[in-house]
Parts: sequence; structure tokens; C-alpha cells
Amino acid sequence: MPTTDSHSRLDDDPAFDLHRGGKLHVEATVEVNDHDDLALAYTPGVARVCTAIADAPELVDTYTWKSSVVAVVTDGSAVLGLGDIGPQASLPVMEGKALLFRKFAGVDAVPVALSCDGVDDIVETVERMAPSFGGVNLEDISAPRCFDIERRLRERLDIPVFHDDQHGTAIVTVAALRNAARLTGRSLADLRVVVSGAGAAGVAVTRMLVEGGIGDIAVADSKGMIYAGRDGLTPIKAEIAGISNRAGITGSIEGALEGADVFIGLSAGELPESVVASMAPEAIVFAMANPTPEIHPDAARRHAAVVATGRSDFPNQINNVLAFPGVFRGALDARARDITEPMKLAAAGAIADLVGEDLGADYVIPSTFDSRVVPAVSEAVSAQARRDGVARV
Amino acid sequence: MPTTDSHSRLDDDPAFDLHRGGKLHVEATVEVNDHDDLALAYTPGVARVCTAIADAPELVDTYTWKSSVVAVVTDGSAVLGLGDIGPQASLPVMEGKALLFRKFAGVDAVPVALSCDGVDDIVETVERMAPSFGGVNLEDISAPRCFDIERRLRERLDIPVFHDDQHGTAIVTVAALRNAARLTGRSLADLRVVVSGAGAAGVAVTRMLVEGGIGDIAVADSKGMIYAGRDGLTPIKAEIAGISNRAGITGSIEGALEGADVFIGLSAGELPESVVASMAPEAIVFAMANPTPEIHPDAARRHAAVVATGRSDFPNQINNVLAFPGVFRGALDARARDITEPMKLAAAGAIADLVGEDLGADYVIPSTFDSRVVPAVSEAVSAQARRDGVARV
Repeated sequence: MPTTDSHSRLDDDPAFDLHRGGKLHVEATVEVNDHDDLALAYTPGVARVCTAIADAPELVDTYTWKSSVVAVVTDGSAVLGLGDIGPQASLPVMEGKALLFRKFAGVDAVPVALSCDGVDDIVETVERMAPSFGGVNLEDISAPRCFDIERRLRERLDIPVFHDDQHGTAIVTVAALRNAARLTGRSLADLRVVVSGAGAAGVAVTRMLVEGGIGDIAVADSKGMIYAGRDGLTPIKAEIAGISNRAGITGSIEGALEGADVFIGLSAGELPESVVASMAPEAIVFAMANPTPEIHPDAARRHAAVVATGRSDFPNQINNVLAFPGVFRGALDARARDITEPMKLAAAGAIADLVGEDLGADYVIPSTFDSRVVPAVSEAVSAQARRDGVARV
Repeated sequence: MPTTDSHSRLDDDPAFDLHRGGKLHVEATVEVNDHDDLALAYTPGVARVCTAIADAPELVDTYTWKSSVVAVVTDGSAVLGLGDIGPQASLPVMEGKALLFRKFAGVDAVPVALSCDGVDDIVETVERMAPSFGGVNLEDISAPRCFDIERRLRERLDIPVFHDDQHGTAIVTVAALRNAARLTGRSLADLRVVVSGAGAAGVAVTRMLVEGGIGDIAVADSKGMIYAGRDGLTPIKAEIAGISNRAGITGSIEGALEGADVFIGLSAGELPESVVASMAPEAIVFAMANPTPEIHPDAARRHAAVVATGRSDFPNQINNVLAFPGVFRGALDARARDITEPMKLAAAGAIADLVGEDLGADYVIPSTFDSRVVPAVSEAVSAQARRDGVARV
């Protein structure tokens, strides 16, 4: 049992007050006030709907909530910055995600925190549950397991599977970087990028920037720069080594940043001001560690042309909530079988384009609460799904 | 693809109109209008709630929706009278169940239709999902697999597991039978019962009546009466043979009904009027096959003192909706670890008692829409959970 002390701590914290009883409800969209209602919504009327779906399976999208409901799936192995706290303790985050799906994009989302031992178990469990859902948002699953889990689920399921810690971050980062490049008169092809962190977000950002035509990109983990042939690379880091770091930079991230155009911070490390000073002119610094950025934005700004963080109290907040609600809204609207790489790039483009002529050093990315974001992202994603041949409507 | 004909059939049927888009939504119970809201409902505030639950796991019941949300789990193997139509085609029923949970008892319920191959897979999958839910309502899973699945899940999980096709039917049947016995001046101990059907409902009704002190009870399946030593009995039917049919009746159900006090119909068979005529005086006939009762109530009533069916257009409707909403409401309110046999009997007692002094041949069970039912059942179930030592609050 918690001590009295910890209970009084809870009483004083408005976060606990807000969370009492949870943040979600399942509501009905039809009335059940009498026997006639019951005979349509339940037996015997419901049997005719079941029979129609058994005869023509695609009708499940029209006559159930399946095509509007997303499972927010975790095993609680990498929750926020808290690490492996397990499925039950992760539930407030999964509920929070479902809340954001509802509030930002009108998507029905259900927290599914799994007690699973490994990759095989998670894949198998999600596959078994899939008939009930129109999409799967993977959340807070530790790297490198998350890569394999997502890849295998995408192969096996005919509904969209999206690991937000990877792709949500990547989409918003790429959107901000496109605008930062535009502001400083460059394109992605002109930039040499150094990424700090080879977890879910670092890998996804790297892959997406490579896909998007970045000039060069190199990634550092806790042992320094990742390069082809470095001893003991995991399979995913070997893949990263193969697609990045064309210059073959070895050693520390500080060395790699000398003369680099862009720093993208996606781990908890520190970035000394002197290192930012050593970067190329018109440098771009995305210090996205939460809650403490790798470098204070004011210090970075003394040397860099554009600075972004993950925080709402500084300019240029890089926040996944700009991406995942609209991405799923668009994928569900198109009844997409998959969320393809071009669909993710389309989402990044739609977010970047909203900034338009207001572009400035303190405005390379729209606000979290900009109501234009979700419609723009969802329309771009739906349209790209149709171009990619993965849409069903 | 469905033919034009079948599409126009759908257009003409109000059940399809009502089901368009599904019957459920996930709604938020908190606002997210600005960065302050986001900082409490999501990061960084949510991290403090996660940490508190990691430190004191019982707080999950207070600070998430877990303790109010029930998974409505099926594999689609025995859906209504439609048989094994699979998980996707079963979704309208599971949504309907969730709708009834919401409308009748304010319980949040989520349809979980599983693509699973067998008993082991279903047990394993539900066990893995259990951290997200406060209870599990098993639904439309074929017999005899349903018995094993429920037993194993009850052993493994510390949340209530309840197979409604078994216990919901049993609770309401026992409630009605208690009142029918009272009306005719008898108690359960005075009655000799014959049950038609040894599926989920037949087995559960038999077990509960034995538990409740019935005089004697015998069960028939498609091969006739079940008795100890009959060739080729499945394990569950062998158990039924062991606890029922003290007289050792063999042969057809028609023979067993001669002089019997009660007929309980839970399969699709037909009950000829002449057989009802052969029953004891003041006979009780529950002809619950849906949509067509085993015998028309008017015909049965020519010989029996009390007649009940599963239909709303005849008196005495035996409908599970009288039981499962209140049973789960009570179990969740008490944070019960299990739904015990005494809790089920308490639910039956609470339903029966509501009839009170208005008892009559056409009123042995309350109406489906009697607003007293859920509060009475949930209070009785909560109180019994506390007496049984399975309540956590």
C-alpha cells in the first residue's frame, strides 16, 4: 500500500484529480428505450446484419464501428521516459493517446496494454485481436523489438499498423526540417544531418530523411557514431549504418557535428553550446529530449538559425499530436490496408505546407492546436493511399 | 461482392439503417483545449500517474478507466442461432452487448472478436489483454469449449470472468422458476425439472439449479436423456450425468417429461402439446428457444400453470439483459476478483424478489425495462462479493 505521504502527494497534484476514474467512456450512438429498439439493435435484428457480413465481409466496415476504431497497443516496455513499467502502469498514457485521437480527429481508440513476454507473443496477440479494429497504433514498445513487431504486423494484417514513437516523430521532424531548410534557402538535399539516438524515433527519422532525399545523415548511439563495420551492431543499427553516414564518420557525436548543418536530438544526451558553435553557418538544432532539451533553446539560438524542441513553452514545438490523429483519420477514411512510406511523407508535406508565408525562425511548424492540421494531414494521407493503391474506398 | 438484390434488401431493412457506422463511440471525459490541459492529461502530467501506479498497482483502479471497462470477448463460434460465423461477422452482436452494458448499467464495454484456433489460444489471448480491463464477458463461444475457457480464465485472472450464455441465462431462469414455484405453492426442492439442451445454457441452468437445491433435474441432448454410464458422454455431459437425473431416466425427453413439474427448453427442439398434457398438475413450461419457442405459449398454457418464453411479445420474457448489466455493475463496484456461484444466486434472488406481491401466472419475472432491476442486482452482487471475500472495496 502507498504511504500516507504518497497519498497526500497525489491529493496535491492536479494530474491525479484529472485522472480520477479515467479519461474515457464507451458511449452508445443508438437508443434502447423499448422492445422495438432492442429488436433492431440486438436480437433478432442484429442477426440479419451478422448474416449479411458473413456473406459479404466488406460490409463490416459499413455496419459496425470497426472502421473507426483504433487499438492503442503497448506492452509497457518503454513508457515515456520511464522505461519498462509494465502494461498496467502504462494505461494512463494509452488512455491519453485515445483521448487525443478522439479530441483531435474524432477517432475511436481503445487502450490495449498487453502482458506479453516477447516479440512473437505481441505479434500473435495483435493478429488475433485484429478482426475487431480498423487500425493499430503501437505505442511505447522498446527498441529494437518495436521494429520487428511493426514489420511483421504490417505484413500480416490488412489494416493500418503505425508505431507512433517511430513515425509520428519522424513525420513532424521532417515537416519542421523542410521548413527550416526553406527558411535558410536550402533543400533537404543540401543538408548534412547528425542524429543523436538510435532508438525508435532516431531510426524512423533517419529512414524517412533518407527516403525524402537528405544530403547526408549520420546517427550516434551511446557508443558514438554508427558506421558500417562497427563491432557488435544490432541488425537495425547495421541497417542504419548501411543507409547513412556516407562519409564514414567514426568517433564521438561532437566530432561529427563539426560543420554539420542539422542536429536532431532524440535521446537524453547533452549538447554543449561550443559544439553548436562548431556547426555550419545557418545551423538547425532540434533538441527534442523531454522534459529537458539537450541544450537550452536560448543557448542554441546564439549560434543556430532555427531551434526547435519538444516543449510547448519554447517556439517550434515538435509534437507527435500534429501527425498521428490526421494520419489515422486519413487512413481510416480511405479504408487503407497499410500506411505506406509515401503516405507518411505526404503527412509531413501537409504539415509543413500549412506554415506557408508566415515562415520564420520561430515558426517552422504549426501549433499543436492549429485546427487546420488534422484536415490537411488526413486529406493528404487519404489521397496518397489512393495513389498507392492501398485504399479500399 | 453482394448482389444488387441483397443491397436493396439491406436498404429496406431498418436494422441496417440503425447499424450504419456502428453502435458505439469512445468519448473523452476530460477536455484538451490548450497546452495546460495537454500537460495534465498527457505529458508530462501523465508520467506522474504512471509512476504512482507502478509504485502502488492498486491505484490503477482509481486513476484509469480499467475498473469500469469490460471486454466483450468472442471467437464468433456460436453466434446467436447462426453458428460459427467467425469473429468479424459476430461484431454487430458484440457491439450490441456493449450497447446494452452502457444503456442498462453505465458499464463501458469494448467488443473484442478474436481470430483464434482453439481453447488454448483464446485463454492465452484474453490473459494477455487482461491488464487493460476490469472484467471479461465471454459471449457466443461454442460448447463444450466455453466451459473450459471460462474455468481456466477464472483460475488465472484476478478480474471477473462471466460467460453470459451460461450464467446470464441461468440467473434469469432460476429467478423465474423461483417465482413460478412460489405462485404454485412449491419451493425449488419440490420440483422435478427436465431440461432440453446440454449446451452452454443447459449446463449452466442445471448446475445452478442443483446448487440452488432443486428437487431433481434431468437433461436431454439430441440423443435423449443424459444419464451416468451413457455411451460416449463428453466430459461436461459426464459431469451433468453425475449431478443430475437421480432417477436414472433413460430414453427420450418425452418419456422423462411424463409427470415432471418443469420443462426448460434451451435448444431448438419441438415440444408437442400432448407431452405438456402428460406433465404433473400445475406444470411450469419455459419454452425459451428463439425466435420460435418449443411450443406456442397459448398451447402450453392450456395445460401448464406458468409459461415463459424468450420473446417480448408473450408474457414472462426470460431475457439475459435482466442479469448481465447488473451482475457486472455489482462486480465492478465491489472491485470483485471473481463472480462466485453465490453471487450468481444472489442476482437471481434479487430479480425474483422484485416481482413481490404482483406475482401472477403472467408475471413471474420483471420486465426487461424495469428500472429497478439493475440497481437491485448490482447491490445484491456487490454485497455477496463482500460476504464471499472476493471484493477489494
